[in-house]
This record gives sequence, C-alpha cells and structure tokens, in this order.
Amino acid sequence: MSRAADMFDTHPGHQEGPDRALILEVIEAAGECAQACTACADACLSEESVDSLVACIRSDLDCADVCAATASVLSRQTATDEAIIRAVVEACRVVCERCGDECERHADMHAHCRVCAEACRRTQRACDALLAAF
Amino acid sequence: MSRAADMFDTHPGHQEGPDRALILEVIEAAGECAQACTACADACLSEESVDSLVACIRSDLDCADVCAATASVLSRQTATDEAIIRAVVEACRVVCERCGDECERHADMHAHCRVCAEACRRTQRACDALLAAF
Amino acid sequence: MSRAADMFDTHPGHQEGPDRALILEVIEAAGECAQACTACADACLSEESVDSLVACIRSDLDCADVCAATASVLSRQTATDEAIIRAVVEACRVVCERCGDECERHADMHAHCRVCAEACRRTQRACDALLAAF
Amino acid sequence: MSRAADMFDTHPGHQEGPDRALILEVIEAAGECAQACTACADACLSEESVDSLVACIRSDLDCADVCAATASVLSRQTATDEAIIRAVVEACRVVCERCGDECERHADMHAHCRVCAEACRRTQRACDALLAAF
Repeated sequence: MSRAADMFDTHPGHQEGPDRALILEVIEAAGECAQACTACADACLSEESVDSLVACIRSDLDCADVCAATASVLSRQTATDEAIIRAVVEACRVVCERCGDECERHADMHAHCRVCAEACRRTQRACDALLAAF
Repeated sequence: MSRAADMFDTHPGHQEGPDRALILEVIEAAGECAQACTACADACLSEESVDSLVACIRSDLDCADVCAATASVLSRQTATDEAIIRAVVEACRVVCERCGDECERHADMHAHCRVCAEACRRTQRACDALLAAF
Repeated sequence: MSRAADMFDTHPGHQEGPDRALILEVIEAAGECAQACTACADACLSEESVDSLVACIRSDLDCADVCAATASVLSRQTATDEAIIRAVVEACRVVCERCGDECERHADMHAHCRVCAEACRRTQRACDALLAAF
Repeated sequence: MSRAADMFDTHPGHQEGPDRALILEVIEAAGECAQACTACADACLSEESVDSLVACIRSDLDCADVCAATASVLSRQTATDEAIIRAVVEACRVVCERCGDECERHADMHAHCRVCAEACRRTQRACDALLAAF
C-alpha cells in the first residue's frame, strides 16, 4: 500500500466506501503528474529544438501548478466542501487534458513527452471518474 | 506601478487592452490572498478556540493552494490556452467565495479572519471580472 | 520503475552514475513527504486533541512546502547550479529532521503521525546521502 | 499598510519588536520575487533568443519555488522553530543570489530580466538582514 493510502486510512475522519479509491487515485495521479510535468518542462528546455517546444513547456508548467494544488486539496478530509472539490478537480481535468494533448504531439520525437502525456492521461481519467461519482 | 505590472509590461508578447488590467488584478489579488490565507490558517491555530476554527483552517489551506496556482498560471503570457485560464480562474473564484464565506463567520471575533475575508472577496471579484471578459 | 525514474532517464541531459539513484531518492521521498505532511496536518485538525497538536500541524505545513519545492528543484537537470542544490537539500534535511522529531512525539497516540514521521525520516536520510556525495 | 502587515499584526501571538519589520520584508520580498521569477521564465520563453536563456529560465523556476515556500514558512508565527526558519531563509538567500546573478547577465537585453533581478536582490538583502538578526 502506498504512503498516501496509509495517510488516508489513518485519518480520524476517514470513511470506507467507493469514494476512497477514487480520491486516492486523484491524489496519487496528480502528485505523480506534477512531478512529471516539472521534469518534462525542464527536459524540453534541454532539447536543441527548444523553439518548437515553447507551448509544451508552458502547458507543463501550468499543469504542474494545478496538479500540485489538486493533490493537496484532495489530501484533506476535514470539513470538506464539495463545491471546492468539484471546482478544483474540474480545473485539474481540463489542464491535464490540454497538457496531455500538447505532450502527445511531441511523443514520437521526445520520450519525456510520451511519459509525461501518460501521467496527464492517468490524472485526467482519475478526475473524470471522481467527478462522475458526485 | 507594482513589480507584477512591470513584469507584465516587459513581456515580449505583452499586449495592451482591457484584459491587461483584469489579468493583473487577478495576479495581484490571488498572490495577496494566498499569503493572507496561509497566515490566517496559522493565526487560527494560535487561538484558544482552535476547535471552532477547524473548518476555517481547512478552507484557508485550500484557498492558499489554489490562489498560488492561479497567480502562477495568470503570470504566464506565452502560448496561452484559454480553456486552461477559464478553468483555473473559475476554480479560484469558487474557492475564494467559500473561504470568504467561512472567514466572514469569524470576522467579528478574529481580526485576522476579517482581513483574510477581504482578500478572498477581492480575488473573487477579480476572477468574476476576468471570466465576464471572455 | 517509477514515473519519476522514467522522466529522469528520458531527459536529454541525463547522466548515468551514482548520483542518479541519490537524486531520484530525494525526488521520490520529498514528493511523498509533502503529501504525507499535508495529510497529517489535516488529520491532526480532525483529532479531538487538536490543542495538543498545534506544533505538529505547524511543522507539517512547513515541511510540506519545503519538500514540494525540493522535489521540483531536484526534478530539473538543465543548467544545474550546485550551490542552489546544496542549499535547498540542506534546508529540506533540517525541516524533515524537525518535523520527524515532532511527529514521533505523537506516534503512539496517532497513527498518521507515525506514518508521517516515517516519510520525514526517509527524506532526511535521502538528503543526508545526497549532501554526502557532493 | 500592506495586507501582509495587517495579517501579521492581527495574529494572536504577534509580537512587536525589531524582528517584525525584518520578517515582513522577507514575506513581501519573497512573495513578489516568486511572481517575478515565474513571469520572467515565461517572458524568456517568448524571446527569439530562447536558446541563450535556458540557464536563466532554470534559475527563475528554482527561485520561484523556493521563494514561494519561504514566504509561506515566514507567514506562520505559531510554534516557530528557529532552526527551520534559518535553514529556509539561508536557502532562499542562496537561490536569490544565484538567480539575481543570472538575470543581471541579460538585464541590458531584456527588461524583464532587469526587473526580475531587482526582485531577487531585494529578497537576497531581506534574507541577509533577517539572518543577521538571529
């Protein structure tokens, strides 16, 4: 079991149920995606063709910021406000979709864009699944 | 003129127009609000009545995370994707509205909650104004 | 292999060598620790004895901020400045040591503090090992 | 008076004294510098000569991360641990010095690097002054 799952299950207000897996998947996917996007922006900067990767770097940086905020908000279980969760997860879904689209354009040329796109798609799907459960 | 305005105007892709003031106001309001919410969560922790401020601390922490991400995303002007901007500003608007509501409940008792609520309302209005311009 | 390892190895400037494992361990430990500290601060807020956990919440929040920044800085491999890496990893080591100490004080009473302390100790050790390699 | 000063002074544990001004200056300078570095990295991305600005973008991104974490840590006044404050402010001082050096190299060519370097120098000085007071 991951550390995030341990933290989730040791929370005094923690509840079992179908949402547990959906929330944990957003926490883990978004945390991983924030790191992947930070690394992908930096890897793009090291490519000779950095000129052609400007839009990719931009979307990586936005995606890293939003995924990090989303993982933090979802990691909290005290006095949860559903309106906040929905709005944040919806923003995360949109940003991961757009960043995934952008990274996929360069996936054949740059393996870091391929790996990063996979992280974005995982997070996009996790957000979709959680939003569908509301 | 603020440093954020100087940074905005010295960007090579910077454009004049009505959006300049609206975007700058979100950058400055959200940056200030992230700091205020971080400080308010901590001030609540130092109150004797911390038990009654748990929901306020929770919304402060969420609001700080989302405002910081929003200020960063809006600070970028390269290869801007309107779908990302809209989704992020909408999430910021919701979180600031809810955190402003929560802080206002304690504004008569705790001056830090009153000041923080003002920061949330400023950011909520700034997000509303920018969303209306799209 | 983790996504962080995939991102590291697909970077165009990536180098093999003993530092690879040390840097990756800081990235993964600090990313995990940021999440654990965010969750632990929130779990403490939900305890009836929140009054006695105020210092723990404070150190959790500091540790989450510093670990997140550290994971991001270490995730970059372009034009690395060793003075920056050293200073950031040293700060991360100190914060993880102090937060681990604080969480261990509550580990018998609160399982989330025990799990969080483990995450802090892992990151402290990872920072120590990387600092020793400079 | 700034919102950060209002938040500082309404904290229940707030103390008058010479440190008040030194801490507030780090909070305000580092908050401003995080925004300036985020914007400068993005402005560099929009320059035709992005190839020659890769090291500048890298240091901007590191500096933004560390300054944001520093502003958050300093914004807290509850159960403060001096060892944490010192280590974080020292890291911030180093990163601002290096990023200021890098941005100054491009200050004649790019006004955004000049403005960003000023923000880095202000924060470096604020950290120096606070460290000297310990």
